[in-house]
Amino acid sequence: MLSDDQCERLGVVLVLPRNPLNIGAAARAMANFGMEHLSVVAPYAPHWREARSAVGAPALLQNARETESLPDAVTNCTLVVGTGTLTYRKPEQRVVPLPALAPIIGGELARGGRVAVVFGPEKHGLTRDDLSYCHLLVEIPTDPRQPSMNLGQAVAVCMYELAARGLLPEKGSTREAQGSGLPEAAASGNLDLLAGLVEQTMEAAGYSPHAMQEANRHDLRLLLRRLSLTQRDIRRILGLFRRILWRLNRHRQGGAVRE
Amino acid sequence: MLSDDQCERLGVVLVLPRNPLNIGAAARAMANFGMEHLSVVAPYAPHWREARSAVGAPALLQNARETESLPDAVTNCTLVVGTGTLTYRKPEQRVVPLPALAPIIGGELARGGRVAVVFGPEKHGLTRDDLSYCHLLVEIPTDPRQPSMNLGQAVAVCMYELAARGLLPEKGSTREAQGSGLPEAAASGNLDLLAGLVEQTMEAAGYSPHAMQEANRHDLRLLLRRLSLTQRDIRRILGLFRRILWRLNRHRQGGAVRE
Repeated sequence: MLSDDQCERLGVVLVLPRNPLNIGAAARAMANFGMEHLSVVAPYAPHWREARSAVGAPALLQNARETESLPDAVTNCTLVVGTGTLTYRKPEQRVVPLPALAPIIGGELARGGRVAVVFGPEKHGLTRDDLSYCHLLVEIPTDPRQPSMNLGQAVAVCMYELAARGLLPEKGSTREAQGSGLPEAAASGNLDLLAGLVEQTMEAAGYSPHAMQEANRHDLRLLLRRLSLTQRDIRRILGLFRRILWRLNRHRQGGAVRE
Repeated sequence: MLSDDQCERLGVVLVLPRNPLNIGAAARAMANFGMEHLSVVAPYAPHWREARSAVGAPALLQNARETESLPDAVTNCTLVVGTGTLTYRKPEQRVVPLPALAPIIGGELARGGRVAVVFGPEKHGLTRDDLSYCHLLVEIPTDPRQPSMNLGQAVAVCMYELAARGLLPEKGSTREAQGSGLPEAAASGNLDLLAGLVEQTMEAAGYSPHAMQEANRHDLRLLLRRLSLTQRDIRRILGLFRRILWRLNRHRQGGAVRE
């Protein structure tokens, strides 16, 4: 079972869920394993109403947060875990099999972080763009002949694994594969803030003259998540880029540069 | 992943499933984790037809075996595992938490046994009578505030646990808690055969004059499963009771007893 404190900082995000039965099933599985925090990204309104008003819908569905985009849903999170079967996709970040996930999440919670486990829509799962907001991907070890799981069942299996394995951090440091043992990880929203500032700086420097390409944005998001930056790192880097940007803009306006 | 040989001797039994969507979901979860053998006990015929003819129904649903009773479905099995949340019920046999189940099943398969994991109907789960055919019960560690799981999700969680943990037998002997390390366990049908003979013998001996009571039958079933008898044990005990019964019947008929 999870402690109250662990529950408080661990949530599930459903991106674009379509079938109200699946939304209800996902919420029920969360309740079965003591999870409370559900966010739903851009649900189809009539089905979302239907799911919430269904007889026996768990309380966490009433309290679920609705956001317009995935980055909004995970803005406070220091570890964002994308789910899916990755058979047909070349992963761009670290992939962890589900049986190895609990100690990683446990470690993140132990150092005070906030964690989201993200599930994609029923038909095709998370898009490449969705996945670029994830620090790591988790793979449920399904049979290659029938890899794709029903949404409610995938949520149930993940919640079971996390609750049953107790979310105790691994001995030694966790996330060592990402190179950071520091205590306060950067929240997803701050990474997006930094990415925006880097982009402005690149434009101001004439680095990407036809404006920032979507492909570069994508790579930058992945890069920032791979670095395991702390909040302190972010503050420093933001300060540096603000200064650079200020100087670049002064130059562009043709003004004299004086310290 | 499971080996072909393990799959061959490991099955799922659904007792009295009602909702065709749940039957389909259970079958799909089995396919996701490489399981092939499904037996269905006394399904409601229209819903059973509907589940089997659903678009995208996995092949194992077409090949599923239909039986009239649970003992029929598990007659060849040497280890029958009942599932459920046991919050409101006093268990009459060993209860194992799901995270500890894989090595027990792995051990049984390693010694050549056949294993069934049994799921009850949606509303109330397995009855006390159903459970008396089980050697042990497995409990999914759910939140006490919302203990009852959806059938399809419960199957998914159990199949995941068995597939992900690899069904390797525990180091040392398994089933040691039941006191047997012998290789060839008795099949469920042979235990029922012995129970029937014991009952006849008790009647012939005038032990239970108003015929065998249902309560005694229940206790005898549980006892025989607790003993971890081997096929060889069963053959010997059957021989003994047949002899006793023959003698008792000779006496009752007033005939002379000669060896």
